[in-house]
Amino acid sequence: MKTQTQTLDSLFIKELEDMYSSENQILEALPKLIKAASLPDLKEALSKHLKETQNQVTRLEKIFSILDLPIQENTCEAMEGILKEGDEIVHNKAKSATLDAAIICAAQKVEHYEIASYGTLRSFAQYLDLDRKIVDLIQDTLDEEGAADKALTKIAEGTMFTSGINKEAAEGHSSKKK
Amino acid sequence: MKTQTQTLDSLFIKELEDMYSSENQILEALPKLIKAASLPDLKEALSKHLKETQNQVTRLEKIFSILDLPIQENTCEAMEGILKEGDEIVHNKAKSATLDAAIICAAQKVEHYEIASYGTLRSFAQYLDLDRKIVDLIQDTLDEEGAADKALTKIAEGTMFTSGINKEAAEGHSSKKK
Repeated sequence: MKTQTQTLDSLFIKELEDMYSSENQILEALPKLIKAASLPDLKEALSKHLKETQNQVTRLEKIFSILDLPIQENTCEAMEGILKEGDEIVHNKAKSATLDAAIICAAQKVEHYEIASYGTLRSFAQYLDLDRKIVDLIQDTLDEEGAADKALTKIAEGTMFTSGINKEAAEGHSSKKK
Repeated sequence: MKTQTQTLDSLFIKELEDMYSSENQILEALPKLIKAASLPDLKEALSKHLKETQNQVTRLEKIFSILDLPIQENTCEAMEGILKEGDEIVHNKAKSATLDAAIICAAQKVEHYEIASYGTLRSFAQYLDLDRKIVDLIQDTLDEEGAADKALTKIAEGTMFTSGINKEAAEGHSSKKK
């Protein structure tokens, strides 16, 4: 937030620029997470979300265009912090199954940050009575983020944790209690 | 994430230390947001969450204790980024209604970050078959975070946006489209 926020209108624009920065940061980070992931389901879910993220960037550009605003970023430091953690995971010497669990953890933080942000944008757009197309574009992205989060939970709690693949990650833990 | 994460067990501990850092950062930030808020419902919701956050810190300390681990923080840079945005909001010269909307926005990002993190911690704790008390402590916090997020949405979409209080915040916006 580099600019002063005087009205709900300018707060909406600031958040829009914030998300444009976030999505572009995610576009850069996701390929590294996909490369580091081992589990096929996880690689597939992240690859699917990479394509969705490309569409989400285009949707934000459409919103800027509908509002006759210049397409610009407002560096999102929160997303920088979240993705910095993700980057450290990739460079971590963890076993592959632990790495997968850590990647899911980082990706879900990203999804939830986006769910909160797009939820706010939708509320503001509705209140400001902006063009219906804008609300629909935000809703499309919000639906994708929610589905991506659920898919990751399914991989974490279903496939991975019941298949025994992650037994490897749990090996040697010393703090296991009854 | 300063330490190497070799197993799911150490990833759980790292996340625990990460959340201990996050909660302590939130404890420091919330009073400033409460002071800056105008809407009584918002002040009340944030004050309630401040008390809950104090309990959440205690719960994390209990988990460290059950696992016979030293109580320590692993500086959470993601939360630092989210709260830095919140801090900028407080120092912003926005009108009070816009400030309220911005505070809700920042607080929901905090809640969602916590929901993602505690959700991961719960999954890991279940998989690692840790003491049932640990899963219950995480679940109690997760329930509070979910309720706090819903309360903020209610304030944003209900009280504020229908009462006309936020008309002030929307005044003068130039990009309103039909």
